[in-house]
Amino acid sequence: MSDSSPVRFGILGCANIARKTSRAISLAPNAVISAVGSRSIEKATAFAKENGYPSTTKIYGSYEAVLDDPEVDAVYVPLPTSLHVKWAVLAAQKKKHVLLEKPVALNVKELDVILEECESNGVQFMDATMWMHHPRTAKMKEFLSDSQRFGHLKSVHSTVAYFGDTEFLKNNIRVKADLDALGALGDVGWYCIRAILWTTDYELPKTVTALRDPELNEVGVILSCGASLSWKDGRIATFYCSLLTNIAMDIVASGSKGNLRVHDFVIPFQENVAPFYTVENSRFGELATVIHPAPTEQQVGTDLPQEALMVKKFSNLVGSIKGKDYKPDKKWPTISRKTQLVVDAVKASIEKGFKPVEVIY
Amino acid sequence: MSDSSPVRFGILGCANIARKTSRAISLAPNAVISAVGSRSIEKATAFAKENGYPSTTKIYGSYEAVLDDPEVDAVYVPLPTSLHVKWAVLAAQKKKHVLLEKPVALNVKELDVILEECESNGVQFMDATMWMHHPRTAKMKEFLSDSQRFGHLKSVHSTVAYFGDTEFLKNNIRVKADLDALGALGDVGWYCIRAILWTTDYELPKTVTALRDPELNEVGVILSCGASLSWKDGRIATFYCSLLTNIAMDIVASGSKGNLRVHDFVIPFQENVAPFYTVENSRFGELATVIHPAPTEQQVGTDLPQEALMVKKFSNLVGSIKGKDYKPDKKWPTISRKTQLVVDAVKASIEKGFKPVEVIY
Repeated sequence: MSDSSPVRFGILGCANIARKTSRAISLAPNAVISAVGSRSIEKATAFAKENGYPSTTKIYGSYEAVLDDPEVDAVYVPLPTSLHVKWAVLAAQKKKHVLLEKPVALNVKELDVILEECESNGVQFMDATMWMHHPRTAKMKEFLSDSQRFGHLKSVHSTVAYFGDTEFLKNNIRVKADLDALGALGDVGWYCIRAILWTTDYELPKTVTALRDPELNEVGVILSCGASLSWKDGRIATFYCSLLTNIAMDIVASGSKGNLRVHDFVIPFQENVAPFYTVENSRFGELATVIHPAPTEQQVGTDLPQEALMVKKFSNLVGSIKGKDYKPDKKWPTISRKTQLVVDAVKASIEKGFKPVEVIY
Repeated sequence: MSDSSPVRFGILGCANIARKTSRAISLAPNAVISAVGSRSIEKATAFAKENGYPSTTKIYGSYEAVLDDPEVDAVYVPLPTSLHVKWAVLAAQKKKHVLLEKPVALNVKELDVILEECESNGVQFMDATMWMHHPRTAKMKEFLSDSQRFGHLKSVHSTVAYFGDTEFLKNNIRVKADLDALGALGDVGWYCIRAILWTTDYELPKTVTALRDPELNEVGVILSCGASLSWKDGRIATFYCSLLTNIAMDIVASGSKGNLRVHDFVIPFQENVAPFYTVENSRFGELATVIHPAPTEQQVGTDLPQEALMVKKFSNLVGSIKGKDYKPDKKWPTISRKTQLVVDAVKASIEKGFKPVEVIY
């Protein structure tokens, strides 16, 4: 197979988020939907139709059938978190590359099983943290890395939240103990933690301490929580994640010389252009009656939505493995694992009565 | 004396911040500078000249002389924090109303001495937290109080910081153990804490827990720190304050229905107009590829800078006491005391190894 042929995706399950990723696969220049499987073939058929899948797409009444299809190169796994370890491991064993929804696992022990299986089978692993692939993210990182403009990082705060209504809080898988036991921490805290690690170039904190009094539902699943993270050199981070609050997707990073702010980092306000705000070398005016300058808006355009860029990047890596015998890129499993380690530490800190928890890779 | 005659201010000391407040007094329609005192009459003379004081201003070579002047109604006290209790108490005993720079005291025990003396002498107390008096603050509060637009408060984060250069960190009173022992916590953390309490209608948190690893200078004065605050009903707040970071003056408040953001709440980017940002009832677009709406900028104009509005408000209260025999307004001492209680709790939590500290009024 030439390395320019598109990566053929199999979709495991008909989760709502799979609609977004299906469109992304269709938009990506180097990917096609090859198969979709559901526990019910009727559901899979309806899903394929509703999402405008190509007529060549194979429709299966099981996930196994997708994994057994030799014309599937990679799978996208949007199943509930508790099912990730089973299906991601099976996929890797069948030599399918794995694009796994976040949170990637219930804990790092599970994730390590997945990552080891991917590594030993030579398949690419990537988590579906879409915002990582927006060109805005690279532009923001440029600013954070600029010692003249931003200086060195001192502090970062992230809030990621959305409002789950009564029906959501009763029925959604994200608040079910047997399906997504990490609740808000896994669903939205994942983004906060990834954002924080992204600002530190993935240097893990020394300690993670959960904020007191997370909100839990009646079966103990987290609906809102937060934590503080601290590094050896005095850098500090805090986050708040919630399913009980109007949508917020913020990073506020403070450096010795500048500040970065973004309010829609997980999902942008517009598909084709996304803003962020920088300010640098701020000064007090005469008599300290004003501060200047005011932050400047930077707009970053994109020809493809971030989720399509994610599919494109993943497919590029897969293509290189298929066509050029490259090894899987270790960056993506590594940052997944670091994110999961911090998720685990927040959970452990909550369970230990908000005591600090050390994070060791 | 008629209640329409301007309040006659005496200034205790020639601190840099007194230049800003002197201008504010000259701008306020109901206040005049009547006297200035310094430990050196030469310094006071030079200060009066540099700041364009009226030729009628009396120049004294001591603070006591200002307090003994019967033509001084009120004093503005910009002295180092460690001197507040002595001079604010003396001022109250001499029946002078007290506009006191923040942080108002080294601890609530000291503050209570000041407040009791003000109360028993029937003089108005107010801390010089200028942003409270900007019309933007009232407009932001309108939004936070709107159950349809903001819903109920769930979480708030505040960052207030500026960058102290080498010379500042060596010589400024704000980092001297004998002058401003609260360091960054008193100088800028005060604003974070006030902002957080302002969002909760001054309901005190149940517990305050300092974030781990504050940065201290060689004599143990705080250069950066943070804390989390939690309320009984699941509301949560975090803040970060620092003298080591580019200027940031942020509040990000998340409600069940809306979000408020402001980036220059302590000192605005412009004197005559100040922005804040609101968004409400945010929704995911089709396939959750976008969120909408984007936040909207609100601009609030002001005819006087916030510090002049502070002087005007304080002078109105003083005028009512002088002219109409009103009692001093208790709102201002009460919110000062609540702010100080949280400052003290953060300090106590740091000293107790980041354990949670209960806050009791």
